[in-house]
Formats: sequence, structure tokens, C-alpha cells
Amino acid sequence: MAHSDDRKPAHSSDAPITIAVDAMGGYHSPGEVVSAVARLSKYEPPARPVYFSLVGDEAELTEILLSTSHNPERIHICHAPTSIGMGEPAKTATADKPDSSIAEACRLCADGLADAVVTAGNPGAAVLTAVHTFQRLPGVHRAALASVYPTPRERGEKQDPFSLLLDVGASLRADARDLVTFALMGSAYAQIVSANERPRVALLSNSRENTLGTESVREAYEKLRDDERVHFYGNIEGHDIPRGLVDVIVCEGFVGDVTIKILEGVSEAAFELARSAYREKMAWKLGLKLLSGGLNRIKQLTDFEEYGGAPLLGIDRVMIVAHPHSESRAIENAIKLAIKNVRAELPRVIARALAEKE
Amino acid sequence: MAHSDDRKPAHSSDAPITIAVDAMGGYHSPGEVVSAVARLSKYEPPARPVYFSLVGDEAELTEILLSTSHNPERIHICHAPTSIGMGEPAKTATADKPDSSIAEACRLCADGLADAVVTAGNPGAAVLTAVHTFQRLPGVHRAALASVYPTPRERGEKQDPFSLLLDVGASLRADARDLVTFALMGSAYAQIVSANERPRVALLSNSRENTLGTESVREAYEKLRDDERVHFYGNIEGHDIPRGLVDVIVCEGFVGDVTIKILEGVSEAAFELARSAYREKMAWKLGLKLLSGGLNRIKQLTDFEEYGGAPLLGIDRVMIVAHPHSESRAIENAIKLAIKNVRAELPRVIARALAEKE
Repeated sequence: MAHSDDRKPAHSSDAPITIAVDAMGGYHSPGEVVSAVARLSKYEPPARPVYFSLVGDEAELTEILLSTSHNPERIHICHAPTSIGMGEPAKTATADKPDSSIAEACRLCADGLADAVVTAGNPGAAVLTAVHTFQRLPGVHRAALASVYPTPRERGEKQDPFSLLLDVGASLRADARDLVTFALMGSAYAQIVSANERPRVALLSNSRENTLGTESVREAYEKLRDDERVHFYGNIEGHDIPRGLVDVIVCEGFVGDVTIKILEGVSEAAFELARSAYREKMAWKLGLKLLSGGLNRIKQLTDFEEYGGAPLLGIDRVMIVAHPHSESRAIENAIKLAIKNVRAELPRVIARALAEKE
Repeated sequence: MAHSDDRKPAHSSDAPITIAVDAMGGYHSPGEVVSAVARLSKYEPPARPVYFSLVGDEAELTEILLSTSHNPERIHICHAPTSIGMGEPAKTATADKPDSSIAEACRLCADGLADAVVTAGNPGAAVLTAVHTFQRLPGVHRAALASVYPTPRERGEKQDPFSLLLDVGASLRADARDLVTFALMGSAYAQIVSANERPRVALLSNSRENTLGTESVREAYEKLRDDERVHFYGNIEGHDIPRGLVDVIVCEGFVGDVTIKILEGVSEAAFELARSAYREKMAWKLGLKLLSGGLNRIKQLTDFEEYGGAPLLGIDRVMIVAHPHSESRAIENAIKLAIKNVRAELPRVIARALAEKE
């Protein structure tokens, strides 16, 4: 690797950063992934230089890079002979392909040759590989994928229009202890990404009252109510999510996966409706044109490409799982998020939050 | 009861119908409930007359009725000395208040003095009371609340813009056997409400592939795939819900509760955004005016008041659980849905669907 000699310890604030990018992951790989990395390689400011390890089929990646404007000083191709497809069952694929692009990317990171992993590939396989390759932080029983989602901008002191939802699918179920860990990790992460000093954290349930929910939610509620490390709001219900009532929402992975995908789907459906209205009527056409400022604001608030990807919290490395449908701009934002999290020393911050006394 | 002498067996197609309405249930009770019943008492066509039992505080209801135009021949007040508040814990409230308005309404129905129950009250207490008062249909281990939700209108043969989601919270968890029962009941109900002969039924999961989901979903998938009684589509994910990909979506109650409330909340948030845009800019103001036809279409598609309430499926009576925030129009639609389900002999249809050989 071109820069391997001048690498400094990761905690040094001006050490170069290396991002291992799974070039074969996602529906638009490797083309859109390479194009994102190529662009970033050219425009990165030099204060703390960023290098990229593009992990995947060397011949294919070399060929694409040849026809793409990039800075060769900052991109290194790391060969991985196989890759895991989007439709492949995560467990068997991970076991059968120890030399896949996502496995190699995680290995680079575990070996200290990269500071973070970014992938838009099979999310199940990505999480499974990460959990097998990296160490869980002390006290973490389950890692959690944390996804930001847009809400109507708050008028008060908080200017950030995003809320954080976790777990969105690193695992399926979570017991009370897991939910408490998610709350602590989510709170620490929100402090980093939203510069929100005391984020409000809530449990997602079927009722504000804590008598009707699942056993794990009821038990986690009791623990969090008395936990001074978290600014605990209580339970919220589904309709509170789009309202942006709290900063961090905690739930088990199955529910979080369904939730985040509904929010994506609603956004798509609304724009499909707007498009079909646009085709139908002249008056609507004009109306939409006049409204375009407002619609763009909604679009910006509902567009997953804007906010990159979901960090996997609870492991000792930085890993961003981007949306499988990510195109170049989304990959670029996922990589930027990875860089931000490396700079903020995310695993260390999370570990510190978990180590605090109750 | 004024009409008790001319009641005929419920299965006679021109027998009068009696709806027991919990007048004390919901945030806008009893005023909005009484006003809905009063209006319906005047305009109901006489072919198969409909009577109403208003269940609640007799003095209060009598006073409201005195100042409300209604047909006294069709409304009978049935006194219930207590009622269960929205915030009360369902279990203890149900046990402590055996003479609540919802308990009395269910009792009227169990005793054959009413054909259906409609309530906008505490949903947990309503379901618990119903399950204790009515019989479960043969083969039903858990009853399910089924909620319709609007989707972009399909262009194909199906003209109905609604999909059905169940369970939305009659219970929290569901095993594979429950999910299969929900699929059969939902399919039968969709045939009634949407005149859809062969509704497409799907399981809500975290992946189209059936390898990653919860144990109960994976097992239900295997059963439904080989079950000729259901037109089984397979698994769908959260983003498929707003798209209206299938006609009936099956999930456990906790997930269904979160899902249906997110859909409500998104609709509210979108209109809040539109309203604030309206205040802000003249150009947007004009744009919204020109768009009003399109916005009304969206509003109609996302407005729970239009489609009344959720039937509780799997019991031997008709019960509609309306939204706790229901105002008069929503209550009216919930009562109309109850009448429709009585006419269609819903419990009999569901029982027949469950009794069919696989």
C-alpha cells in the first residue's frame, strides 16, 4: 500500500485515514462504488489525508479505474476472488466464501491496515462478517445497526432534522439488556453525528404506558428510567417516529428493519404519486412547479442517498452499511460518514459511554 | 328495547340489525359518538332497519340526545355505570370494572341483543373484553385486529386502493400457527370488504428471502407456500407496504401496531409540512391551491377517518375497534363497517374459511 510507511497510530489526530471499500457490494457495484471512490480521491482536503482500499476483483476494478479520473496515489486495489450476491443466504454465503470482498475488507480493518469498512453489499452477510471478524466492545452482547431518518425540522434549539433508529437489523430480537445497551450506544452516537449534547432516547412500543408492551421493552423501560447516563423520554409509538419527537429510538432489529423500510417506501410512494399527478393535469403541473422549493425540501428530508449509511455500533472498528441500492452519491456520503466516525474515534466513544457507572 | 319483538334470527337477510355502540369510548366521547349515531338513526334506509344501543352513562347520554336531532325509534340507551379511560392499564381496568360501557356493549352482543359492537375506546381493554366475552372460532388460538390502509391506486384489475394489515395489536407475539390463521382470516375478510376474489397474501419480514426472518415467519412461510386455500405471495419488506404490493399483509401484533401507526404518522407529518409551507410563501400558497385536487386525493388515501375501524377477526361476533381519536365522521364509518360485516355474516365466512381442508 502506497502510504503504509507513513501511517501513524489511529488515535493521532493528524494520522492518515484508510477506508476499506467493498467494491463488489450492492446493486450498482462495482461501477458506482468505484466512481464514488475515484471522485473522493481527487477532492479530499490534505489536512488529514484519506486513502482508499478498493476491495474486489482486481482485473475488473483496474479496468474501471483506467477509464475513470482519479488520484492513483490515494487508491489501492486489494484483490478478493469472490463476492457475496444480494440474494444469497447470509449464513451459508459467509461460511462458503471466506475470501469474499466483504471478508477481505473486514480483515484489512481488523489487521490495522484500514480504519473503517464501507459496504453496500448484502447487509446480512456484512453484519455477520463484521461480528465474526471484529471484537465486540466490553458489555455488548449484540451489535446494532443505527440508521438516521429525516423528520420535520424542529423549530427549537435543535437544528438537526434527523433522528436515529437502532437496531435496524443487525439481529432480530433483543432482550432488555440489549435494549439498554442500544440506548447507551445510540445516545453516544447521536452526540457525535448531531452535536446534540443530551439526546432524548425512547423505546419504541405499542403504547406510551409501559404496561402493554413486550416483556423486554417493559423491563428495559424500568432499567432506563433510573439510568442517569441516558436522557430517557419513555415509550413512543409508531406515529411519533415521523414527527421526530425524540432523537434516538431504540427497538429490536426485526421491528427496526420494518420501520426504516416503511419510511423509505412512503417517500418513494409519495413521489410516484406526485409524478403521476404531474403527467395528468396541467394545473397540477403548474402547481408542482410553484411548489418545487417545498417539494425539494421534503425530498431532501426523505432521501436515503443524502445520509449515507448505517453504522454498526458495538464493535471495536468503524463499519458503515450503506443501502444496497446506493448509487455513487450515496456511496460517497457513506464513505464521508465513515471518515467522520474515524475522526471522532467512534468505538472509543461508545466504549466510554458503556463503561460509565450507572 | 323498542324493537325487541320484531327481531328475527341474525342469518335472515332482512332481519333488523342492532349495533351496540360504546358511547363512552375514545377521546371525543360521548359527544362525537352520540352525534354519529343520531345522524345514522335518521338516514338509514328502511330495507333492513338498523337499531342502535348507545351504551354508557344514561343521564349524560339522555341529556346529549335531548339537544341532538335523532330518530328515537331507532336509539335505545343502555346504562353502564363505569367506563374505562384511555390511559388505564387494560388488564386491571377490565378486571376492576365489569360494568364498564365496553363490557356492557359486549354483553348485549353475546346475549343476542345486538349483532355487533363498535368502540373507539381503550383498544387494549376492548380486545381483552371481547376475547373474554365472545367465543373464539374453532381453530383460532389468537384473534387478530385487521386494519385497512390506503395505497396508491392500482391500475390493473384491482380498483380498490386499500390493503389489509393484521394483526395490528390484538396480541403482541404470534407463532407460525397464528400467522397462518391470520392469513386465512385476512384473505376471507378481504374477499368481503374489497370484493377481491383471490387476494394476494404476504408475510411481513426483513427479507424477501425466507432465510433471515424470525422463526415463526420462516415456519409460517413453509406452511403457507403449500396451502391452496391462500394465494400466497411470499415475504414482503417494509418498503412494499406503502407501494400496495399485496392485498393482505400478515405479521405479529407488536410489529403491526408500530406499522399502522407509522403510516398514520407519516400522513400527519406530510400535512403539517404542507401547512407550514402554506403559511410561509406566496408562491407555495398558489402552488398548493392549484394542486388541491391532487392533495385531496392523497389526503383521502391517508385519512383513517375514511375507513372507520379495525374488525377483530377470529371471534364469533362482529366487533369494530375504531381509532381512539375518532370524531363523528370516523365513528359513523366504523358503524357502517359493522353493519356491512353483519350483513356479510363475517364470523360465519371466517369460520368457513378456517374449516376448509388444506
